[in-house]
Amino acid sequence: MPRLLRSPIKHLRRLPLLAALGLASFGLAAPKVVEPARLPSEIRRTAEALRDRIAAGSKAYDWVREIVDRAGPRLAGSPGDHAAVEAALAILKSQGFANVRAEPVMVPVWQRGIEVGEVVSPVSQRLALTALGGSEPTPAGGIEAEIVRVSTLEELDQLDASACRGKIVFIDRRMARTSDGSGYGDAVPARSDGASRAARLGAAGLLIRSIGTDRARLPHTGALTYAKDAPRIPAAALSVPDAELLTRLVRRGGPVRVRFELTCGRKPDAPSASVVGEVVGREKPDEIVLLGAHLDSWDLGTGAIDDGAGCGIAIEAARQIAALSPHPRRTIRVVLYANEESGLAGGKAYAKAHAPELARHVAALEADLGDGPPLGFSWNAGPSAEAMLKAIAGLTGALAAGQLKVTKSGGADISPLIPSGIPSLGLTLDASTYFDLHHTANDTLDKIDPATLDRSTAVFATAAYVLAETPETLERIPEAARAQEAE
Amino acid sequence: MPRLLRSPIKHLRRLPLLAALGLASFGLAAPKVVEPARLPSEIRRTAEALRDRIAAGSKAYDWVREIVDRAGPRLAGSPGDHAAVEAALAILKSQGFANVRAEPVMVPVWQRGIEVGEVVSPVSQRLALTALGGSEPTPAGGIEAEIVRVSTLEELDQLDASACRGKIVFIDRRMARTSDGSGYGDAVPARSDGASRAARLGAAGLLIRSIGTDRARLPHTGALTYAKDAPRIPAAALSVPDAELLTRLVRRGGPVRVRFELTCGRKPDAPSASVVGEVVGREKPDEIVLLGAHLDSWDLGTGAIDDGAGCGIAIEAARQIAALSPHPRRTIRVVLYANEESGLAGGKAYAKAHAPELARHVAALEADLGDGPPLGFSWNAGPSAEAMLKAIAGLTGALAAGQLKVTKSGGADISPLIPSGIPSLGLTLDASTYFDLHHTANDTLDKIDPATLDRSTAVFATAAYVLAETPETLERIPEAARAQEAE
Repeated sequence: MPRLLRSPIKHLRRLPLLAALGLASFGLAAPKVVEPARLPSEIRRTAEALRDRIAAGSKAYDWVREIVDRAGPRLAGSPGDHAAVEAALAILKSQGFANVRAEPVMVPVWQRGIEVGEVVSPVSQRLALTALGGSEPTPAGGIEAEIVRVSTLEELDQLDASACRGKIVFIDRRMARTSDGSGYGDAVPARSDGASRAARLGAAGLLIRSIGTDRARLPHTGALTYAKDAPRIPAAALSVPDAELLTRLVRRGGPVRVRFELTCGRKPDAPSASVVGEVVGREKPDEIVLLGAHLDSWDLGTGAIDDGAGCGIAIEAARQIAALSPHPRRTIRVVLYANEESGLAGGKAYAKAHAPELARHVAALEADLGDGPPLGFSWNAGPSAEAMLKAIAGLTGALAAGQLKVTKSGGADISPLIPSGIPSLGLTLDASTYFDLHHTANDTLDKIDPATLDRSTAVFATAAYVLAETPETLERIPEAARAQEAE
Repeated sequence: MPRLLRSPIKHLRRLPLLAALGLASFGLAAPKVVEPARLPSEIRRTAEALRDRIAAGSKAYDWVREIVDRAGPRLAGSPGDHAAVEAALAILKSQGFANVRAEPVMVPVWQRGIEVGEVVSPVSQRLALTALGGSEPTPAGGIEAEIVRVSTLEELDQLDASACRGKIVFIDRRMARTSDGSGYGDAVPARSDGASRAARLGAAGLLIRSIGTDRARLPHTGALTYAKDAPRIPAAALSVPDAELLTRLVRRGGPVRVRFELTCGRKPDAPSASVVGEVVGREKPDEIVLLGAHLDSWDLGTGAIDDGAGCGIAIEAARQIAALSPHPRRTIRVVLYANEESGLAGGKAYAKAHAPELARHVAALEADLGDGPPLGFSWNAGPSAEAMLKAIAGLTGALAAGQLKVTKSGGADISPLIPSGIPSLGLTLDASTYFDLHHTANDTLDKIDPATLDRSTAVFATAAYVLAETPETLERIPEAARAQEAE
């Protein structure tokens, strides 16, 4: 899922340029009054029938199951990743997609190994922890040191190096449960940036409270980023119950010593692939509406919600559109991206390989926030696009919440398309419970509700169809707003 | 917790003798009309004040935390078990209990080791599994075989040996969620008896769906019993999501091969101890009301709900009664039993060591079903006891559901007291979510709600006080109903 999902308000504050351009969103700031687009009645009727057919029961869940059961965990470059590519190709071919192919991508490879931890004193207790993605291993035998607990990254930055040197920094940052997932963006810098910020103070290792909203004894992994100017120290996430144990022990007073050992590490880059299939447009086959999701997953669970669900939504939305006769005006292209989780190599490779035709990509949609229920879309496009998006929101209003909000990127995978100005839409889903499971061993098929997934698929398909069929296209992202978020 | 908790209806069916004796319970069969006991008003007022004081906020949670944080997992004979004995002794001494002591018990020792599993074909996937308590190890390198899936033990019994020989039997028995925990008694024979019943058919190993009501990727352990007439094959529980994966793979058709390896095993018996402390009675100090819970736990979690919560309830109930001036007529004896989970050695040792004074035990109460909310009591005593129990239920009705039901045993730890006719009461708690966590790594302190635990403690303390104070005592269990359940 998007690694930098932020609270909408904060997000807007960080986008003075967009705000100046009039990209204030519905419900978040004073709405700009725009006349709703009047969709041709034929398009409206077809879209409604498509929507209702999918919502009544689709095969989206079947595609998720096929990928999840055949491939299991599919960290970029792993055997599961390759199995997922095979499974996705088989699905697209069996369902009659055109131009089905695997587009090669070299991906960074990182492997988890042994990961154990324990409180050494004042009591002896095992700790449930997992290496953060990309972490260096500990020295053999692990590291043992006193912990220094902080509640936030900001609190860490205020510590003196003398308090941290040789210690294990423990960031006990709590993540808030929200329906839009904004608690994730607020909390996740502890995971992505914590190691380097602790290392600059001389810390020997980093432990964080899992970035998650649950109380299961299952830690949440996810990528960290090592800054170039800091030593690369090993870093792991504790399950929430274990983080709370550490905090209770700290509060009893006196030093708390912890040992942990990780044998994970980087391996040479390896080949993987994004999987692509198309529903060729009847009139403008070279104009493309891209439907994206990512095929890779973290390695602890089987990636059913992140992002098997998105793959199921994208495949099924396109499959249902393919069943329309005639096909819509433009081509629907499903892209199941390689390596979203640990490098975004699939998204970047796609933008590079398809550079010549990006000007003919009229929209890119992504599904990467679980199975639903659907709320609507986040979007980034020229201001006049709002009218069409309102029309789409009107069509899907009974299934979704009709939410439309301005975003910087509709999804991580499609974010490399922003510099080309391609209007991007992210399917927004209710993420209230998504972060209970996200990046844990608990991300398994049984967590997906097929009927909810159908609703989300119906909303996604409706938007895709309208964007592929209506004569006009969305205004592209203004030049000034095409700067990409730094990684 | 009681290993043989059964649905009340079934239970009654199995108790023709008790039924013949008129032990039908309120709400479960036609109630026998009994005049409610008229408690002396002084006793009633003191009991009400005690109840209300505890319900308004007690230290029960503090005692659970102290045991859980200091000892962590405390499987019989393990270092954590010894730490728990020390922690419990320290609590009882610090709180001014009389005659605080550790009563030595030799306990069976079993150690978990490496436990790994995977689907080998038709796909390659890891399986989250855990050895059942008492399981033999697999041969080095594990066992790999095709699985034979059944939904129930009964279905297994109908298979021909030719279908099972050399295979891994997989019992996919689902457990129902119920408020009284009866789903556990219905499902648990798959865990306790499955290995021997599969072994008699020539199976090489057993896998079961965890006996639990959750969907977490955390398997539930618990004791198995090897029959004397069957080979001792290794046995493990899959987490529910993993069991469902196996079932989906079986339903795809074709053989499903699994490999698993366990390095667990039995070790020589070791010393442990039950921890005892008393509130000495003012008038009949040699008459005893026993408050029981068990100090040991399974090794995956930290035993907060099973049975740290019961220990907290028993300790705090007695501590609050000790604060009464004067003390009640009889002695309140807290017994925190060793080794409930894997042998009941603590309960048996207590009955043996205290045989001379069992005739003066007027009641034994146990708390071993989590933190609550409280529903009432299950009971086993002579029929005339019902009047007093109704009076107690009346006193606690606003906090609990006033439930009174006939049982065979008020709890596993106190079940060895039944042959002596000691009236036994089990604190019945709403177990709707208890089996989401039971015997898993997820049984940690954060799952306990302090206010709920206070309510349960208030109910337990009220009963204990009334039974220790009222001049009359409960009618003892009739001779004919003292036969113990076979282990």
